[in-house]
Amino acid sequence: MTNLLGEFIGTLVLVTFGDGLVANALLNKSKGQNAGWIHITVGWGAAVVMGVFASIACGAPQADINPAVTLAKMLAGTYTLPHALMTMVAQVAGGFCAGVLVWLAYLGHWEETADPGLKLAVFSTGPAIRNYTHNFITEAIATVFLVVPIMFIFSKNVGGLAPGFGPFLVGWLVMVIGMALGGPTGYSLNPARDLGPRIAHAVLPIAGKGDSDWGYSWVPVFGPYAGAAVAFFIARALGVM
Amino acid sequence: MTNLLGEFIGTLVLVTFGDGLVANALLNKSKGQNAGWIHITVGWGAAVVMGVFASIACGAPQADINPAVTLAKMLAGTYTLPHALMTMVAQVAGGFCAGVLVWLAYLGHWEETADPGLKLAVFSTGPAIRNYTHNFITEAIATVFLVVPIMFIFSKNVGGLAPGFGPFLVGWLVMVIGMALGGPTGYSLNPARDLGPRIAHAVLPIAGKGDSDWGYSWVPVFGPYAGAAVAFFIARALGVM
Amino acid sequence: MTNLLGEFIGTLVLVTFGDGLVANALLNKSKGQNAGWIHITVGWGAAVVMGVFASIACGAPQADINPAVTLAKMLAGTYTLPHALMTMVAQVAGGFCAGVLVWLAYLGHWEETADPGLKLAVFSTGPAIRNYTHNFITEAIATVFLVVPIMFIFSKNVGGLAPGFGPFLVGWLVMVIGMALGGPTGYSLNPARDLGPRIAHAVLPIAGKGDSDWGYSWVPVFGPYAGAAVAFFIARALGVM
Amino acid sequence: MTNLLGEFIGTLVLVTFGDGLVANALLNKSKGQNAGWIHITVGWGAAVVMGVFASIACGAPQADINPAVTLAKMLAGTYTLPHALMTMVAQVAGGFCAGVLVWLAYLGHWEETADPGLKLAVFSTGPAIRNYTHNFITEAIATVFLVVPIMFIFSKNVGGLAPGFGPFLVGWLVMVIGMALGGPTGYSLNPARDLGPRIAHAVLPIAGKGDSDWGYSWVPVFGPYAGAAVAFFIARALGVM
Repeated sequence: MTNLLGEFIGTLVLVTFGDGLVANALLNKSKGQNAGWIHITVGWGAAVVMGVFASIACGAPQADINPAVTLAKMLAGTYTLPHALMTMVAQVAGGFCAGVLVWLAYLGHWEETADPGLKLAVFSTGPAIRNYTHNFITEAIATVFLVVPIMFIFSKNVGGLAPGFGPFLVGWLVMVIGMALGGPTGYSLNPARDLGPRIAHAVLPIAGKGDSDWGYSWVPVFGPYAGAAVAFFIARALGVM
Repeated sequence: MTNLLGEFIGTLVLVTFGDGLVANALLNKSKGQNAGWIHITVGWGAAVVMGVFASIACGAPQADINPAVTLAKMLAGTYTLPHALMTMVAQVAGGFCAGVLVWLAYLGHWEETADPGLKLAVFSTGPAIRNYTHNFITEAIATVFLVVPIMFIFSKNVGGLAPGFGPFLVGWLVMVIGMALGGPTGYSLNPARDLGPRIAHAVLPIAGKGDSDWGYSWVPVFGPYAGAAVAFFIARALGVM
Repeated sequence: MTNLLGEFIGTLVLVTFGDGLVANALLNKSKGQNAGWIHITVGWGAAVVMGVFASIACGAPQADINPAVTLAKMLAGTYTLPHALMTMVAQVAGGFCAGVLVWLAYLGHWEETADPGLKLAVFSTGPAIRNYTHNFITEAIATVFLVVPIMFIFSKNVGGLAPGFGPFLVGWLVMVIGMALGGPTGYSLNPARDLGPRIAHAVLPIAGKGDSDWGYSWVPVFGPYAGAAVAFFIARALGVM
Repeated sequence: MTNLLGEFIGTLVLVTFGDGLVANALLNKSKGQNAGWIHITVGWGAAVVMGVFASIACGAPQADINPAVTLAKMLAGTYTLPHALMTMVAQVAGGFCAGVLVWLAYLGHWEETADPGLKLAVFSTGPAIRNYTHNFITEAIATVFLVVPIMFIFSKNVGGLAPGFGPFLVGWLVMVIGMALGGPTGYSLNPARDLGPRIAHAVLPIAGKGDSDWGYSWVPVFGPYAGAAVAFFIARALGVM
């Protein structure tokens, strides 16, 4: 279980960058306000690259930084159930701390922003059209297209990548997932990315915040878990996991 | 013919990401609505990268994921005619399944979008100015600039690429083709990318859809084929194929 | 002089992509209209990557695809004067043919575009504020920041790059030059990129075209040449050429 | 102390590209005016890549090009105090010269731009909401997320990168820092990037310039220094420095 620190730090880096760039795009008077969807998607892609390096550097060579990926690997036998659960807790804790850091970095901007919905959107995803069934399906499909392509990139048939290029390609994968499948739900893909900062939103004294939309919160957690489970069976059937 | 699964999966990944990002940019209430041409072109480039890795991982090291590329390689002797035809069928089938997945991922957004033309544009290309001769020429030129540069990148004179960097460069090539030559027709370049999802558009119960514009559908199929044939002769003359 | 074909093809690929992406951004009814400066700069960067691979693949391992770079290398002794001149002619010829191809690919869009200035801008650069002294200085500075950093990237101290990564980095260099120093003149940096397509603009039957602004045309040719000469002395002084 | 030339040239390249791209986005009549936050952040990222190569090529393999990074390495024992101070002076001098070059490259655009605040913003950062405590915290956090991830990327556990890929990844890191944490202060991260050009702004005969906002100038210098010091202790605790 020496991977817990790495998964914590890796997820912290991922979500600080990821939620930070949403803050920049959404909060009033921020210099990157209205930076657009290309900003969101390129940025989350690069956030993943940096999160993966952080995770590896701090002792978690698996570098899941995502409980859904951890679930898929548990099904593949990489983790035992207790180890997977501890890993997931570390990831969610990293997401929580990231939420605190983003709140601090944008300290003066919360009271300048009127809409509480925008403030929550900095921390956690929300649906474009609220329909839990549709939203769940979208998150599940998007997570299938996260987990299976990761297995493709690192598959035996591909036969290896130049050193350091693997994390970069995973970043590009997350970028294109956001571009392609992020429209309906804002692409959680990752329970720790959504739940950790949502808890931070709930407990932090954010100026003028609204509720934390716990009614929706299960979708960006269990949609990705469902997708990862399906992804495991697909990847196994295709011989890449 | 062990490449058929890989070509199917690779094209499915390519078109799910590619058509998905068009859906995100065009469908009403999607979070990436009006994300712009940079989103379209960077996204399709990244979609190609992921499609190529998928194809290689699943047993198709050629990783054409495009019947026009397969045609050029058939002319070069890589495929027999029956093998090429089977490969093309697998590619179109991948494009069809991708159309279904994109429809599903954006399930709530079809009825929110009024213009049937935008819905078709998610699945298949269409001309900016309808002129079949001009549109055919544009698609042919653009495909020449797809196939010949691929041969350049992997040419003997270049002498090899860092592992994993080849698919990335092909993605950048498709990105710049879209930027440079995609304006008049929306750059099919690839019969499977256009025909597969067009069939999906025709058969799926998409809310408020219009016709599938079969009158234009031959241009994004035979324009790329013509370009690929020309590309074969140019690449052969230049000693790179 | 076996490099002439490679320099011709490489410059043709560079300028077809480069001018094509300007056409897409400027011509009326094109799908990428108003795609913005990020489209221009990322696109020209990727165009350089593809031009360099084309040049190497076709027998020009130097892959200058730019007479200003060729001039700097001639000063460094890589080329004789006659060889440099022949190389420059090949490069300008590549730029000319690229102009013809872009005209053809956007055939229906010229008559749909009212402003003759936009049509010329597809082919060749022009000043934001016309002041030949200022414009010359800007082009010279920008070309210094092209030639010297190329020498940095491939310098002895850097000690080599992963195979295929060199052309990619040169593309990123051109991207950031355009972003940083392209504002006042549209960054020719390259006599062949500007003069070749300007000749094409002059001779092609482009619907509703205006004059080819020959009064300005010397700036984007001799500004880059002057910058390249200065760059040679700087690079020599810094020990990287 | 043979690294001084390399740090000078590297910072000069970094800030010429970086400040140049801000000039392009902010100055009136520039072709890249209003290019947006994606332009700013991708551009600064690429500027770092080129600055690092310049620094290495000219004899500074450490390639800090940032006094805050130099401070962190001094705490780690890489530099003595006098060596660190000399290095910082070279870096600030590089930033100053870059300011002069950007002023020259955009020579005709200063008098066309009415707002003196935009002209200062080309050279140096400024706060979105002026609150020295908040601004200091933001700069410190952002610099922690610069220095520690650099240590992650080059850490023993990562085990090396493909040649030339390290500088590229650092560029992507700076890109995502700007996207995520640059909103409140415009992300100095680097005392030389801010102080050098601010001195240039103060001394150059810029048409219609205002004051150089020396009241704020300590924040983008000491915020990064504070962050770098914190980063050293975090990186040390995590075993990556």
